[in-house]
Amino acid sequence: MRNMKTFYAKLMTMALLLCAAGMLKAQSLTSPNGELQMNFSVSPQGEPVYDLAYKGRTVLKPSKLGLELKDDPGLMDGFSIADVKTATFDETWEPVWGEEKQIRNHYNEMAVTLNQKAQERNIVIRFRLFDDGLGFRYEFPLQKNLNYFVIKEEHTQFAMTGDHTAFWIPGDYDTQEYDYTESKLSEIRGLIKGAITPNSSQTPFSETGVQTALQLKTADGLYINLHEAALVDYSCMHLNLDDKNFVFESWLTPDAVGDKGYLQAPCVSPWRTVIVSDDARDILASRITLNLNEPCAYDDVSWIKPVKYVGVWWELIAGKSTWAYTDELPSVKLGVLDYSKTKPNGRHGANNEHVKKYIDFAAANGLDQVLVEGWNEGWEDWFGKSKDYVFDFVSPYPDFDVKMLNQYAHSKGVKLMMHHETSASVRNYERHMDKAYQFMVDNGYNAVKSGYVGNIIPRGEHHYGQWMNNHYRYAVKKAAEYKIIQVSQVNQ
Amino acid sequence: MRNMKTFYAKLMTMALLLCAAGMLKAQSLTSPNGELQMNFSVSPQGEPVYDLAYKGRTVLKPSKLGLELKDDPGLMDGFSIADVKTATFDETWEPVWGEEKQIRNHYNEMAVTLNQKAQERNIVIRFRLFDDGLGFRYEFPLQKNLNYFVIKEEHTQFAMTGDHTAFWIPGDYDTQEYDYTESKLSEIRGLIKGAITPNSSQTPFSETGVQTALQLKTADGLYINLHEAALVDYSCMHLNLDDKNFVFESWLTPDAVGDKGYLQAPCVSPWRTVIVSDDARDILASRITLNLNEPCAYDDVSWIKPVKYVGVWWELIAGKSTWAYTDELPSVKLGVLDYSKTKPNGRHGANNEHVKKYIDFAAANGLDQVLVEGWNEGWEDWFGKSKDYVFDFVSPYPDFDVKMLNQYAHSKGVKLMMHHETSASVRNYERHMDKAYQFMVDNGYNAVKSGYVGNIIPRGEHHYGQWMNNHYRYAVKKAAEYKIIQVSQVNQ
Repeated sequence: MRNMKTFYAKLMTMALLLCAAGMLKAQSLTSPNGELQMNFSVSPQGEPVYDLAYKGRTVLKPSKLGLELKDDPGLMDGFSIADVKTATFDETWEPVWGEEKQIRNHYNEMAVTLNQKAQERNIVIRFRLFDDGLGFRYEFPLQKNLNYFVIKEEHTQFAMTGDHTAFWIPGDYDTQEYDYTESKLSEIRGLIKGAITPNSSQTPFSETGVQTALQLKTADGLYINLHEAALVDYSCMHLNLDDKNFVFESWLTPDAVGDKGYLQAPCVSPWRTVIVSDDARDILASRITLNLNEPCAYDDVSWIKPVKYVGVWWELIAGKSTWAYTDELPSVKLGVLDYSKTKPNGRHGANNEHVKKYIDFAAANGLDQVLVEGWNEGWEDWFGKSKDYVFDFVSPYPDFDVKMLNQYAHSKGVKLMMHHETSASVRNYERHMDKAYQFMVDNGYNAVKSGYVGNIIPRGEHHYGQWMNNHYRYAVKKAAEYKIIQVSQVNQ
Repeated sequence: MRNMKTFYAKLMTMALLLCAAGMLKAQSLTSPNGELQMNFSVSPQGEPVYDLAYKGRTVLKPSKLGLELKDDPGLMDGFSIADVKTATFDETWEPVWGEEKQIRNHYNEMAVTLNQKAQERNIVIRFRLFDDGLGFRYEFPLQKNLNYFVIKEEHTQFAMTGDHTAFWIPGDYDTQEYDYTESKLSEIRGLIKGAITPNSSQTPFSETGVQTALQLKTADGLYINLHEAALVDYSCMHLNLDDKNFVFESWLTPDAVGDKGYLQAPCVSPWRTVIVSDDARDILASRITLNLNEPCAYDDVSWIKPVKYVGVWWELIAGKSTWAYTDELPSVKLGVLDYSKTKPNGRHGANNEHVKKYIDFAAANGLDQVLVEGWNEGWEDWFGKSKDYVFDFVSPYPDFDVKMLNQYAHSKGVKLMMHHETSASVRNYERHMDKAYQFMVDNGYNAVKSGYVGNIIPRGEHHYGQWMNNHYRYAVKKAAEYKIIQVSQVNQ
């Protein structure tokens, strides 16, 4: 996120309005250093088409753009170029946190207004060409014939020049927890079944579907990265490969009824990004994603403090101790069960003495916080039950003394880090958020790690759909009201 | 709801434990006045079966009971009777509000424990036979082999003795807003298409599906009513007719992925009710539904005050005035749009002068409250857009002065009634509830009429499913925290 104060600093717009529609067949844009060049045109059928070159070498062959809509002719073809505006932008801004003190945001921009004559409506495709890559997005101005609309699929293509090497994980609506496979594009179909290892929630969608960010390497040493930025009120983009022609196409995450996005104009899609270099290190160094994200919305960011932390966590994963307090319960009804009357299993990780040792360790080794998972009631039956009222986020187990442990930590210059596992029961989390964040404030926590393990409730929704993206943002904004840092993890 | 204080007053239990399984083939129960008799048995396949007679005449022929579960052999057959307990209950209790000061709750009860040997688990079917009808429900005790389970369908039968006359509306997951049809059972299939008139949200499910409560009349003058009570954490029951054999069977409302209920033992189903009489007036006079609902959960009910009200409502329905403030907007983004800069349409019903006239009328005619619909921002695009952030429930239109109008009303001994139309965007309503109810308290409202017009968001859920039943209860409980009376309407 960028700081708003400096964002609007040096915008220099050079509006270029070409009058004759006949002249508007093809448009070119060059990066500030001249190494990247992109071309845009419309096909004879009126389909938007773009391509991209780096130091004279083709990165993307002509690739189509467009969106398929529900109960609507769609935004796929029948377009002509109505207007082209170009601009240059150069600004240096200060991130709230990150690896650098300052980030330069420098690009040449081309905003193409496309008129769809048969539907009497316009869309805009906005391209920003940086020295390290391309970003572009769809923009939907409010107008008579484009107001509320439903996306059936976005058909944004990225046409590769050949059978590149890809470092990929299977495309999935619910998880990115897969090991990476390095293979030729033509080999994905044969390898994907083996790459789809078990996960707590998973919904692969295609035999050639892969996840963004996708890293590619060409035979002649070009590195290409496909991803997105400013993912707001839209579903996540995966990529599906046409492995005969080596063309990737966007594949959005659907909702419970199969639709892929409910939009209200005026609005924009997330940015689609293509980072390019002949030096692999430039890909990691690229700040295209940060530059295309919206600026930071908060004036006061003094409460946002990145921390180093240790946690009662790996020992749980490794099976040395348990999240659950007792082993004797087949299920839990929160507010009904009295844990003090249950038999402890003797292996509960989040107990007072054990957490104190972690606090001592953190204090002795200069770590800021101690994450404690399994501190709260409900872990006996939290997973795989599609349980609605699974946690209340404020009730500790009998052997976890919230007040004492926070005081002990604070006395040593350490903070505890809160843990909110939602078990993907999202309505339940939203219902408890205010009380949960107030509980944190009351007890001296300032950061929460949240998790969404398992299939989403409401059932049929997916971790990467518009519904959930809306929720993650809601959670972060709610937490910010309490000056709490949300460390969301989409799937554990 | 019944008052808790007197509920547990006069329970007289006569436990009857029959030892020899061979003896437990058939069980009978008689109503307190002896006019109703029911029999229960298990079939040779171990299916639970019951029948019902009134003054010696058959009301229900042998009818099967059972539930089909997901990824489980189900609770349909393989049962034997393990235990039978009978009891008699007679109590008179005082409802918080209603037509009578006191209600008598008098029944004979039989709780049959059924053992499903192959699955090593038990369920209980509890029957309560009143003088005016039968209630029964499934009970699921917590046990090793019955803990979390998912209902695919409940198969509770009501086997009619013939081709009765029914007063029916089409079975539908989303609305009951249909005109009633009076026909023979055998005529439903031919008439249902014409009976399904347009509605803002509708999902009929079968050519012989009808809604509960269902009123029937036999050729020889018996009146039979099929319905349910204590609908908590379960989906609504519709009825599907086998019109060859005149057998009704329960048909639950599914969720977005087609499942019909997520249950955690110990738990119970709603009561299924069969009200019977040879005098039609007894059907309306029956208090079986109230007697089977759970007792009132609140000690302090002083804030629950039924009212007579008039409303800025029918003129909206009739088209004389509008909910919307302006006609010039194709859509609204709440918090972005400044209504004071829009052009009023001049026909907005909820304006200060007009509402004052309603207040004057209410004061002059002894009416307690004035409902005002269309008082808040967002009505320009509230319907049919599947719009998530559709209302915020606290922002009045520029011509509706909340403070002034409430003061004016209170000065005349009248209250305004709040209106919360959710547009079926349920997550949005839950996110705004606390602020919305606090806004009511701050401004002197004590009752809200809520509505759920249109298809449910989260998409794929239905008005009568478990998800929404959970929500309606949440809304009522939240409102009660603010001592606000919730007048929920499931679909306008």
